[in-house]
Amino acid sequence: MSAVRFRDATLDDLPAIVTLLAEDTLGEKREDPSLPLDPGYVEAFALIDANPDQRQIVAEQDGTVIGTMQLTFIPGIAFKGAWRGQIEAVRIASALRGQGAGGAMIDWAVEQCRARGCRMVQLTSDKTRTAAHRFYERLGWTRSHEGFKLKL
Amino acid sequence: MSAVRFRDATLDDLPAIVTLLAEDTLGEKREDPSLPLDPGYVEAFALIDANPDQRQIVAEQDGTVIGTMQLTFIPGIAFKGAWRGQIEAVRIASALRGQGAGGAMIDWAVEQCRARGCRMVQLTSDKTRTAAHRFYERLGWTRSHEGFKLKL
Repeated sequence: MSAVRFRDATLDDLPAIVTLLAEDTLGEKREDPSLPLDPGYVEAFALIDANPDQRQIVAEQDGTVIGTMQLTFIPGIAFKGAWRGQIEAVRIASALRGQGAGGAMIDWAVEQCRARGCRMVQLTSDKTRTAAHRFYERLGWTRSHEGFKLKL
Repeated sequence: MSAVRFRDATLDDLPAIVTLLAEDTLGEKREDPSLPLDPGYVEAFALIDANPDQRQIVAEQDGTVIGTMQLTFIPGIAFKGAWRGQIEAVRIASALRGQGAGGAMIDWAVEQCRARGCRMVQLTSDKTRTAAHRFYERLGWTRSHEGFKLKL
C-alpha cells in the first residue's frame, strides 16, 4: 500500500468527501454527491473550516482522497475541566478497506486529540456496523457506552 | 414538585455543578467539589461560557441548583450539512430523581437544539447506567449506537 497522509480538507476536497459519505450503506439514503453540490454541504464546510474546535480531515493516497472524518474538540467541566476529542463520520473508500488506512487514520486522530490536550477521545458507531465495532476494539477502544439519538 | 426552570449557568453556579458531578457513582472517583474549586473547573467554565457552540445549563428549583447538563452544537457535512446537538454530563440531585425533573431537562434540551436548527440530538450513557437507558427510551430516544471511548 502506498503511503497515506492525513490533512485538513479544503473546499476542493468537498465533492470527494460527499462521495465517500454517499457510498456508505447508511449514507446512500441521505446524501447526494451530484454536482454542483447541494449548498448545504458547502455552507457546512465553511462553518467547520472557520471553527477552531472543528477539523474536517481527509486521507490522501497517491494524490487521491480515500478517506475522511470530522474531529470536534469539546471543553467540559467533568474530570476537573477536561477537553474531549470526538470523531464523527469516519469513511474509507470501499475498495481500500481492510488494508490499514482506517486504523492509521483513527490512530492519527487520537494523536491530534492528544496534541490538543484532550483527556479522552470518543465516538459512536451504528449498532449495525459490527465490523466497525471489532475494528475499534482492535485499536484499543473500549465499548463502554450506549449511544442514543433523537431525530428532529 | 415546585416548578423547575432551566437556564445557562453562571460562574456562581460552578460549585453546585461540580457537587452534582461528584455525587454520581462514576463521578465520585474523579471529581473534587472542595472549595476553593480546582482551577481546572474554573478554566473549563470560562471556555464553555465564551463559546457560542457550548452551553452549560442548570436546572433550578426554589432558588437551588438541582441539575446540570452541557449542550454542544456541532456542524457537520453529513445529512447535507446538518447541525447536531449533543448532551453531556447530565445530572439531577440524587434526592430529587424520579420526580420528572430529568425528563423535563432533557426535553428542554431537545427544544434548544431544535431552535438552533439541529437535525438530530445525540448523547451517550455508560453501559452500567441501566436506569438511565430506560429513562431515555421512555423519552423517545433510540438506542441505535455503540459508544466507544479511549482515555489518553
